[in-house]
Amino acid sequence: MMAAGTDGGSTTSSPDGDLRTSWEANAAAWTDAVRGGRIPSRRAGTDAAVLTACARALEGATGEGGRARRVLDVGCGEGWLARALAAGGADVLGVDGSAALIDAARAATTTDGGAGVARFEVASYDDLVARADRAAGPFALIVCNFALLGDPLAPLLAALGRRLAEGGRLVVQTAHPWAAAGDGRYESGWRVETFASFEQPFPSPMPWFFRTLGSWVGELGTAGLRLLTLGEPTYPETGRPLSLLLECGRLPA
Amino acid sequence: MMAAGTDGGSTTSSPDGDLRTSWEANAAAWTDAVRGGRIPSRRAGTDAAVLTACARALEGATGEGGRARRVLDVGCGEGWLARALAAGGADVLGVDGSAALIDAARAATTTDGGAGVARFEVASYDDLVARADRAAGPFALIVCNFALLGDPLAPLLAALGRRLAEGGRLVVQTAHPWAAAGDGRYESGWRVETFASFEQPFPSPMPWFFRTLGSWVGELGTAGLRLLTLGEPTYPETGRPLSLLLECGRLPA
Repeated sequence: MMAAGTDGGSTTSSPDGDLRTSWEANAAAWTDAVRGGRIPSRRAGTDAAVLTACARALEGATGEGGRARRVLDVGCGEGWLARALAAGGADVLGVDGSAALIDAARAATTTDGGAGVARFEVASYDDLVARADRAAGPFALIVCNFALLGDPLAPLLAALGRRLAEGGRLVVQTAHPWAAAGDGRYESGWRVETFASFEQPFPSPMPWFFRTLGSWVGELGTAGLRLLTLGEPTYPETGRPLSLLLECGRLPA
Repeated sequence: MMAAGTDGGSTTSSPDGDLRTSWEANAAAWTDAVRGGRIPSRRAGTDAAVLTACARALEGATGEGGRARRVLDVGCGEGWLARALAAGGADVLGVDGSAALIDAARAATTTDGGAGVARFEVASYDDLVARADRAAGPFALIVCNFALLGDPLAPLLAALGRRLAEGGRLVVQTAHPWAAAGDGRYESGWRVETFASFEQPFPSPMPWFFRTLGSWVGELGTAGLRLLTLGEPTYPETGRPLSLLLECGRLPA
């Protein structure tokens, strides 16, 4: 649920817990920032990139015939992506660990909008790992847009893989490790996002786990997922990487 | 056969042909540089990294029981890696498009050296694509160490995949796209290596194709290969990426 560019810094105090609570504190500021179009990297192209990747993945996801494709938006935040995919005809379930964000998502969503439908439920990542009946599959597409901020990821990724339909696709957009690494040592670890580039103050800094490319590929492999394509949208003006876009399928059992 | 760090610049004149002829012109200077330990990135860790990756891949390559593992070293140059793998017990065939480099490789290789054996043959990448009887498989391990410098790669990668034994591994070490991109636009294309960092003049500049991460993953997928691990050795002092190490297997047919 974050932006492609981030600030440096590090933390050691229970980062996973701080990550979860930060989103309750930041829900209103985040919703304003997204809906006001005030996140530079999203304006520069990450919103468009994930929509294109989702459309492509739904084309590639085989096996559902003419029915509306079921889509799971993990870490959906205030719901813009779920709404956009529903407007395109998909049957979308958005889940997020933050009840405040799910409230915001529901409040902005009409049921008579587009060709598809968007629904929202509170579900933590721990819920998704522990309980197959929460956000139950199969889904033709599962999308995580700047939403995989914790560590380790493999248990959650595996739980998502189990929710994929035969031939289904997992699309992950995340900070490009090159851009996000900054000038420091290139190694995975917890960092802190202060939202300083967001043109408005955020109540709480957010711990997030910086992951090298090697770590991303490793977590996917451990989770039984296969990397199909790796996209690297760039800033139009500078040609520098804007984000990393991973499209994955399940490995044969 | 190049170094991890490269110079900028671009070329448009028949880069694939210039790439091939550059290696005949540079064979003696290259052999001196490798054997004299005068390539900074190799000293900093890429030699050790590819040896570790090969040992790991041979461990992971299943199905050959107690026999010496057959290894193909593609773009072997003057042969140091083939000799090192043979010293470790493998049965290694080194191939290179440059007859001058194969001569240098043979001249430095004794048959009574270690536990295994290293042999060398002239074979261009076009040969490997067109003729299954050249450097015929199956191989438990195929390694390309800074050797995949042309474009497109998928036909060659597919030809190598067909030479892999069941459960065999392809290991590719190449310039890290982040480090190699420099400060310019991040996009695939032909560039020129001038060997300026090599402490000695080289007769011919060498065209090579810079490839983004996305391009690497795309060529592997087109070739029917699956990325198993992605390694990113770093410079010990700075922690910055030194190279990209891709370990791949064949996709099920």
